[in-house]
Amino acid sequence: MYLNEGERIDQLYADDIQIIQSSKVFSFSLDAVLLANFPAIPKRGKIVDLCAGNGAVGLFISRKTNAHIYQIELQEKLADMAQRSIQLNQLEEQMTVYTMDLTNALTKIKGDSVDLLVCNPPYFKNSETGIKNPNPHLAIARHEIHTSLDEVIHVSSKLLKTNGRLAMVHRPDRFLDIIDSMRRHRIVPKRIQFVYPKVGKEANILLIEGIKDGKQDGFKVAPPLITYDQDGNYNPETRKMLYGN
Amino acid sequence: MYLNEGERIDQLYADDIQIIQSSKVFSFSLDAVLLANFPAIPKRGKIVDLCAGNGAVGLFISRKTNAHIYQIELQEKLADMAQRSIQLNQLEEQMTVYTMDLTNALTKIKGDSVDLLVCNPPYFKNSETGIKNPNPHLAIARHEIHTSLDEVIHVSSKLLKTNGRLAMVHRPDRFLDIIDSMRRHRIVPKRIQFVYPKVGKEANILLIEGIKDGKQDGFKVAPPLITYDQDGNYNPETRKMLYGN
Repeated sequence: MYLNEGERIDQLYADDIQIIQSSKVFSFSLDAVLLANFPAIPKRGKIVDLCAGNGAVGLFISRKTNAHIYQIELQEKLADMAQRSIQLNQLEEQMTVYTMDLTNALTKIKGDSVDLLVCNPPYFKNSETGIKNPNPHLAIARHEIHTSLDEVIHVSSKLLKTNGRLAMVHRPDRFLDIIDSMRRHRIVPKRIQFVYPKVGKEANILLIEGIKDGKQDGFKVAPPLITYDQDGNYNPETRKMLYGN
Repeated sequence: MYLNEGERIDQLYADDIQIIQSSKVFSFSLDAVLLANFPAIPKRGKIVDLCAGNGAVGLFISRKTNAHIYQIELQEKLADMAQRSIQLNQLEEQMTVYTMDLTNALTKIKGDSVDLLVCNPPYFKNSETGIKNPNPHLAIARHEIHTSLDEVIHVSSKLLKTNGRLAMVHRPDRFLDIIDSMRRHRIVPKRIQFVYPKVGKEANILLIEGIKDGKQDGFKVAPPLITYDQDGNYNPETRKMLYGN
């Protein structure tokens, strides 16, 4: 396996997955691990990882399913890292990376065909005045420069089959936007989980799951996840997702 | 102070308030205590307690403000308990009870005049088939028999001044309905807190605060409140609200 300058191979111990990372281009965050652990994973069928980055979410999920996993990533450097990580873990049979704008996803994946769609999209609005990361790779991954929340959810809805599920990680301050956009595109919000950095702190991450054309009743707020203990160490639940124990 | 048959006087130690209760008619729950502790309380002006029941929320809040507190309750027996609790605590100067349907609230309280509105409304939809409490007082307090979520929020919005705040306690499964209704009536959801009975359990109570004609940005998810510890005892935060220590 060749590595580009600045790249390294990291291990997610919990899922026994090796993943190519780069502090200069992209490395996955806790958010990706949380997302991979949030939805029930269908045992077969079709899973799509939208805004896949270096492929972390799809790679973590691969251990729990025989479904085929399609990863869609706009940035060539990141998609290339994902592709090489797939080889590194010998997952070529199960996983496919498409380097493309997500609006073209339907040229490769049939509409109304996907069982589960996972997405860790750019979190921040692309305001003219907002401070962006000077690194263009990170800026594109974090800010809505080439896509938007509504576009991501619109494409997701087109890909999902009826009763297919969308699972997304995002920021709590975008919560109302997410709810609005899901419902605009026939995805009924069904389950939400808030992640709090510590006891006594406001939530800093939200995980949300919706069902395409699902029933309107039965909204649930999953148990809280509190990332760190009072000493700044990972709590057992977070530790288990990262290290498997 | 006279007590009707089945009535007793309970004490909320945290706020040094005595309150007339009745297991046959109505007694306040933890939800009322949580609601009274949720919003910032304006020091003066006008506070309304809608669906006031036996007056618990308004009574608890009275210790933190010089604002006048208006309580609106449909059921005569409950409003009468609230009135006697006001006397019991010598709060006649600060508090007023109106026994009326909340749709008539604007005949007594000027529109666009209220600084804070607190509400612990009936939680359950009034479905024909649903099981209701055979006690009519409890059925009316818990089920949307004489009012509905949307009506409560509509009246709240008419009473509130611009930038006045609505604070409500409800069930997480009504969350989307609450958000929809608030926005339909010009109340922008701003802050939410989920209450979980124990670590590892789904939220069973939600507290939500909105601002009439508020700005659309800045939605916050307050730190989680976890009612009980693993042994079933109140956690320190809950204990403090109930007992003051």
